[in-house]
Amino acid sequence: MATKYVYSFQEGDGKNKKLLGGKGANLCEMTQMGLNVPPGFVISTEACLRYLDDKALPSELMADVRQHIQALEKATNKGFGDANNPLLVSVRSGSAISMPGMMDTVLNLGLNSQTLQGLIKHTNNERFGYDSYRRFIQLFGKVALGVPDEAFDEHFEAVKKRVWAKYDVALGVPELKEICDLFLQVVRERTGRPFPEDVFEQLEIAIQAVFNSWSGRRAVDYRREFHITPDMANGTAVNIVTMVFGNMGNDSATGVGFTRNPGTGENQMYGEYLVNAQGEDVVAGIRTPKPVQDMEAEMPSMYQQLVELRNKLEQHYREVQDYEYTIEKGVLYCLQTRNAKMNATAMVRTSVEMVQEGLITQHQALLRVNPEHLEQLLHPRLDPERTAAPLAQGLPASPGAASGKCVFDADHAEILGRAGEKVILVREETKPEDIHGFFAAQGILTSRGGKTSHAAVVARSMGKPCVAGAEGIHVDTRAREAIIGDTVLHEGDIVTIDGSLGHVYLGAIPTIPPKFSEELKTLLSWADSVAQLKVMSNADTPEAAAKAVEYGAMGIGLCRTERMFNASDRLPIVVEMILANTPKERQVALDRLLPIQRADFYELFKAMAPRPVTIRLLDPPMHEFLPTESELVEQLEHLRHLQTTVQGMSNLMSTLRLMSDVTVPQNLPAPFDLSGEDLIKQGLMKREQMLRKVRELYEVNPMLGHRGVRLGITYPEIYAMQVRAILEAAADCMRDNVPANVEVMVPQVVTLQELRHVKQIVNDTQTEVEQQRGVKLNFKFGTMIEVVRACMRAGQLAEIAEFFSFGTNDLTQATFSFSREDAENKFLPLYIEHGLLRDNPFEVLDVNGVGQLMAMTVEWGRKNRAGLKVGICGEQGGHPASIRFCHHIDLDYVSCSPHRVPIARLAAAHAKLLEDKYVVE
Amino acid sequence: MATKYVYSFQEGDGKNKKLLGGKGANLCEMTQMGLNVPPGFVISTEACLRYLDDKALPSELMADVRQHIQALEKATNKGFGDANNPLLVSVRSGSAISMPGMMDTVLNLGLNSQTLQGLIKHTNNERFGYDSYRRFIQLFGKVALGVPDEAFDEHFEAVKKRVWAKYDVALGVPELKEICDLFLQVVRERTGRPFPEDVFEQLEIAIQAVFNSWSGRRAVDYRREFHITPDMANGTAVNIVTMVFGNMGNDSATGVGFTRNPGTGENQMYGEYLVNAQGEDVVAGIRTPKPVQDMEAEMPSMYQQLVELRNKLEQHYREVQDYEYTIEKGVLYCLQTRNAKMNATAMVRTSVEMVQEGLITQHQALLRVNPEHLEQLLHPRLDPERTAAPLAQGLPASPGAASGKCVFDADHAEILGRAGEKVILVREETKPEDIHGFFAAQGILTSRGGKTSHAAVVARSMGKPCVAGAEGIHVDTRAREAIIGDTVLHEGDIVTIDGSLGHVYLGAIPTIPPKFSEELKTLLSWADSVAQLKVMSNADTPEAAAKAVEYGAMGIGLCRTERMFNASDRLPIVVEMILANTPKERQVALDRLLPIQRADFYELFKAMAPRPVTIRLLDPPMHEFLPTESELVEQLEHLRHLQTTVQGMSNLMSTLRLMSDVTVPQNLPAPFDLSGEDLIKQGLMKREQMLRKVRELYEVNPMLGHRGVRLGITYPEIYAMQVRAILEAAADCMRDNVPANVEVMVPQVVTLQELRHVKQIVNDTQTEVEQQRGVKLNFKFGTMIEVVRACMRAGQLAEIAEFFSFGTNDLTQATFSFSREDAENKFLPLYIEHGLLRDNPFEVLDVNGVGQLMAMTVEWGRKNRAGLKVGICGEQGGHPASIRFCHHIDLDYVSCSPHRVPIARLAAAHAKLLEDKYVVE
Repeated sequence: MATKYVYSFQEGDGKNKKLLGGKGANLCEMTQMGLNVPPGFVISTEACLRYLDDKALPSELMADVRQHIQALEKATNKGFGDANNPLLVSVRSGSAISMPGMMDTVLNLGLNSQTLQGLIKHTNNERFGYDSYRRFIQLFGKVALGVPDEAFDEHFEAVKKRVWAKYDVALGVPELKEICDLFLQVVRERTGRPFPEDVFEQLEIAIQAVFNSWSGRRAVDYRREFHITPDMANGTAVNIVTMVFGNMGNDSATGVGFTRNPGTGENQMYGEYLVNAQGEDVVAGIRTPKPVQDMEAEMPSMYQQLVELRNKLEQHYREVQDYEYTIEKGVLYCLQTRNAKMNATAMVRTSVEMVQEGLITQHQALLRVNPEHLEQLLHPRLDPERTAAPLAQGLPASPGAASGKCVFDADHAEILGRAGEKVILVREETKPEDIHGFFAAQGILTSRGGKTSHAAVVARSMGKPCVAGAEGIHVDTRAREAIIGDTVLHEGDIVTIDGSLGHVYLGAIPTIPPKFSEELKTLLSWADSVAQLKVMSNADTPEAAAKAVEYGAMGIGLCRTERMFNASDRLPIVVEMILANTPKERQVALDRLLPIQRADFYELFKAMAPRPVTIRLLDPPMHEFLPTESELVEQLEHLRHLQTTVQGMSNLMSTLRLMSDVTVPQNLPAPFDLSGEDLIKQGLMKREQMLRKVRELYEVNPMLGHRGVRLGITYPEIYAMQVRAILEAAADCMRDNVPANVEVMVPQVVTLQELRHVKQIVNDTQTEVEQQRGVKLNFKFGTMIEVVRACMRAGQLAEIAEFFSFGTNDLTQATFSFSREDAENKFLPLYIEHGLLRDNPFEVLDVNGVGQLMAMTVEWGRKNRAGLKVGICGEQGGHPASIRFCHHIDLDYVSCSPHRVPIARLAAAHAKLLEDKYVVE
Repeated sequence: MATKYVYSFQEGDGKNKKLLGGKGANLCEMTQMGLNVPPGFVISTEACLRYLDDKALPSELMADVRQHIQALEKATNKGFGDANNPLLVSVRSGSAISMPGMMDTVLNLGLNSQTLQGLIKHTNNERFGYDSYRRFIQLFGKVALGVPDEAFDEHFEAVKKRVWAKYDVALGVPELKEICDLFLQVVRERTGRPFPEDVFEQLEIAIQAVFNSWSGRRAVDYRREFHITPDMANGTAVNIVTMVFGNMGNDSATGVGFTRNPGTGENQMYGEYLVNAQGEDVVAGIRTPKPVQDMEAEMPSMYQQLVELRNKLEQHYREVQDYEYTIEKGVLYCLQTRNAKMNATAMVRTSVEMVQEGLITQHQALLRVNPEHLEQLLHPRLDPERTAAPLAQGLPASPGAASGKCVFDADHAEILGRAGEKVILVREETKPEDIHGFFAAQGILTSRGGKTSHAAVVARSMGKPCVAGAEGIHVDTRAREAIIGDTVLHEGDIVTIDGSLGHVYLGAIPTIPPKFSEELKTLLSWADSVAQLKVMSNADTPEAAAKAVEYGAMGIGLCRTERMFNASDRLPIVVEMILANTPKERQVALDRLLPIQRADFYELFKAMAPRPVTIRLLDPPMHEFLPTESELVEQLEHLRHLQTTVQGMSNLMSTLRLMSDVTVPQNLPAPFDLSGEDLIKQGLMKREQMLRKVRELYEVNPMLGHRGVRLGITYPEIYAMQVRAILEAAADCMRDNVPANVEVMVPQVVTLQELRHVKQIVNDTQTEVEQQRGVKLNFKFGTMIEVVRACMRAGQLAEIAEFFSFGTNDLTQATFSFSREDAENKFLPLYIEHGLLRDNPFEVLDVNGVGQLMAMTVEWGRKNRAGLKVGICGEQGGHPASIRFCHHIDLDYVSCSPHRVPIARLAAAHAKLLEDKYVVE
């Protein structure tokens, strides 16, 4: 039996979008559910593929088409090519996945010099007839015959100009007639043949043209851009539908509608219509359409039919629909429907309400919403009504928008911030010691660095907007100004940044605050009840912890204690600790840090109680807390110059005093007095000492250097202080009846022996604290898994570790031997462009490499400790695709920055609901 | 039944060294094979362990001992404690593994005031009697009763002084009698009790003392130092043996012997003896022993017996023996035997000769020799007769010894080297651009850096001695001198370095050249026939390739093409290539490099044909070929100063010329003429350009940076040039009938797509070369496995790669997240010291982490490509323990530096022969 290529709307399978395309399948489905759809049929995508392979239509295809045209003639009581009562059709593309505007469509097909007269007679509207004809000639000429639009437009504009017509509607029948003749002539000249009069010839050419448009450049580019692969959509179907006309008088109209408000999600009639108009008039914007509510008064019975249509569509599809209709002489035809695209607010509201209305289940509601879209709801956005043009463009490094005064250093940001000013911290790039500036600022703008630069990572973790690497901006910190093209930004000038798009604006642009609506809360509570993965948050401060709780985090999966060291009241003590030459000197500094850390931990435990809080012991290499070598060298040079100047002034004064005829003041003002000299000497000594230390601590590859547990082993007193601070804070919580839930985590572990070594410190400290406080402490001890060897030794590590937490930032670097900072600046963009890697593995978990290691780690770890708790705390932990993988390998939790928590909660539910469909290559 | 603790020499199992100790087992075995061993018995190690546990001798032990003493009495016809004809015994320790000098021994036990007289009567030698007695009192006093030696020595020296005796032998009977009385008094005073007269009490105390010495501090330290674990030796046995005396007249003697010459391996009588002496006299060095050959004339029948003894020992043990004997009144007693310790020369020669004599099999011969010991045979050594003391101490970074003139930079080394001078390159540290200095020098000495510093790694790969990190040396390159304490080394002064020990000497110390003897060749040929692993060599030059072939390498497993770039005639072209701003500019430099590389490859293929040669495409990051930022900044500063000076001179001359009364020369000499100024300008420009590039190429973590295949993808023209050079060289070989065996290898691969990308370059180039040359090329295409992700994707990579080569240097860094340079300087020593890691994983393959990854890689790779060839080319590939693992996971080959090839060949044979015993934790 020959392959069946053509399906009437009565017979096509409404679920088979791959075969019939999305539009075709929906037309079949609507027809079969009894909606008034103009008669028509679909030529399948299989025919398209066959055509593209063979470079010719399948031999039997046109015969089938003729049969289906006959059926249309019968149903409409019209004749295709009939000079009295002609049947006109539209020929539309439609693949399994909507590719708006990418492929071709022909309307009014079936018109020729004969049928034109029949149309005019039948509609009793000569202008309509000629207007339809000239539109058909141009569209067919362009799409099917390859004549460029300009060849037609040239004549059209010439005629319009001649008759002083500003708009098309001003053209009368004589001009339209003339234009039709000119157009036919254009086709003859350009193609060397007359415009086809045979309507079947027209049809055949149009079908081929639609098929060809699948492999046209636009369509191919679109599919590549949006990652549409052949398994998702392959080939286009062709929909041949009887033309109906909304421009047949005041009982005719055309319109588009959404079954609910796509901006707010409200359950109401929503859409626009035009009386006595064709669909393309709505698009052309020549007349302003009316809101659908007006139809109730204007065409009450039609309005009732429309309400019915809308209800039937939603009842049937159980999804908000975006539909098109035409009313021809009081008869409502539905021409198209598809699932509506909506913003996140509307998606969330409709999801919840459709459940409440019994239309869909909670699971369906969850799956409707793309977790990434929630991002829109969690950050302030720029007012979409803004008219200002961006002044500069950088990378969208942390979403959200903010306005404030420019400041060029962290100290100043802090001062202004404390004074209640809104500020934007503007730097060439940021460093850990700028952290107090981050706290104080509304947003961060840098001229160097990528999406994973320090500025970007820290801003994201704080949920503050950041535009990074805005290379057009030249920041001159010393002059306290930034230059953008011709504009000079002085300190205090107001700027606005949009971290979602990477835009920088001069002045304050109004922002729309984020909404954490009741519907979102409801939806996320459903997500929590479905999800298997728990969602924790990375948080280093009580403020971040509070945010995390607000967003529904079930605990803190990662508290980076070093972030606590960077605050301006602590950093000097930390520097003192690093500069110490003996363990005894170091202990003095540590003794000062102990109460500060203890208080930090107490606040954190309290904010989260009774949820778990995982504290990671010190991780970064020591030199990260010190200025860089070149900074110190520069400071030393300045101080030495100052010293020379001060000494010169002092000498000068002494000399002057010896001259009897000169009266000089008794004392020099500071800093030219002796005290100034002493201060300079102290400053020099301090910096020389630091410089020696910085050089001593220098590392060729700091990422692979002296950090994490390696520090805990070479300087056990540092870890001992931190553990004591944690356990004393836990004891304080017990005293205050705060149900603290404490976990101690060791970073960078590679051997069981390291873990044993730290465990010993923990045990000893526990014994001491318990004796001193007379309490029995209860906490967990675990390890980061962020070094490949730790994966290989997971079984052994699980002998001591009560939990594992994957540090996928470092683990990815180690697995790829890619230094993130170097890779993202130097070769990673090219890798993605050339398809050597599908995604940036620092954003999306590399399932095949890093993920493979993780899967083995989980298996080996749980083999030695049944029920071992395992989570992830790398940046990828907040990414939906990564979360699906984490669910797949049976992790217990993911931990991400507070602002990603809602996204992760929904993604965790998706992961559970879709687990059967998950495939790892 | 009670445990049996005591075994007579007739009944003990000679193979059971764990139970009876090495000495005891051999005494049993010798007794049972009919050699004349003095009667005796062994108390087992089990008794020792029981004693140490219970803090008391097993209850039945002493009864058993008494029974065995009775047997001795019967056999010797003497009585233990018999005042007329006393039986004296020695009580000696002896564990399963020899721990020389670590545990205690008592001789002449059984003497007391009564039996002393019997001894005197029976030997008719009063002086002998008293001398034996005073020795026994002191030894027993010290070992069994804990009286310090000094307490005895004090009295002994006082008596000697009083009678003007210089040596002990000058003491007569009265003095010895007095000394015995004084010693007995010392014991009484120190222990509060009289010296035990009861001989069984003596015996019991002595047995306990020997047992206790197992857990004495010396023994415990020794076992820790030499990694002797309880499964190797646990507890000491006690050997109780009838005393025989070599000092009973001129028909008595004592001696030690080796069954073959332990210095040369020659099959000859070897050893020394003393007539009329006791064993300890030989050790005391009071009289000079005679070579055993003298005995043939002096005591012909004894000599014949000794020859027989030697023959029986070798025939029985089939191993060279180190034995002790005593001749008492014409009767030869064998007192001890054990396997001889020999140097590598002797081990190799005896192994081969014992096979030829039918004593052992080839397999046994191979297993006798520790592969690491071959190191001795492959490098020049310092004359062991040297008397000079080292001037400085560094790390033994590359073995061997060499003398030469100090030079302080590579250029000068090259100039002197070409002039035929022997030079030692002395640097603070070396860099890749010093490579020509390495070629020219006999050895390398640095004051900074560790065993894996650039100097060490390159020197090892060239087989040249290197002392690295000799921190006592201050190198002042500008002054062309080095300061070591008070000594100043000027350029041209002669030094000698010993890279095996890390010593530096002033002046020329004679060296002994290495021997690659016929016996070694024979042994290694046996090794090759047994081994399953092939042994290849890492070699970057035809010279190194020739060395590799000489040492038996079966091919080149790794040729690092970048080493070819560092030669002084190439580096400027490479720099030009790096500085290029466009692919076109870069191509100009590449076109100049192409013929140079092609010639390199041609020579290499020819030197190795028909053995395989694996060429690795460019690996290091570009900035490694450029000077450092600070070097450039310094050079620029100098040039600017020079520019000012030159301009000043020029101005000065112009001014002078204006003065009529001064006569000035017409032109300034260079560089103060105009040409000088131009040269300086050019130099400034070049360096400014380089500085910009260096800053552009800066990487935070170069180990994880823009290198390997990442370069091949961002600069495809570089890889294209290298591939062309390889394939054209292969075509040239075909033209010249050289059977080249070529393999192309890609470094740092992480995805299949990268490999595909490079394969495309290779395919395109192949097509071009084949067309141009009219030949069909045949070669292999493969990949390094040195990034963890490549391990995870091994199955995929094997779809394209025809071979894998593990780069375990980088793979170890990535698996541990340890930067080698940072780790070895900062925390690795502490890790090893604290037992957090057993070995430095950069020297010994980390079987549990890196090895685990390798095993999975091999399995997954071969699953997708049956018979995939897999090897290792990291430094660990030449390490015997690592080679055993490589065999275990079924690699095809190991590749190491040429000088490690013989070691690796033997280790590969060991791996095969011992495969059944191999266990991975």
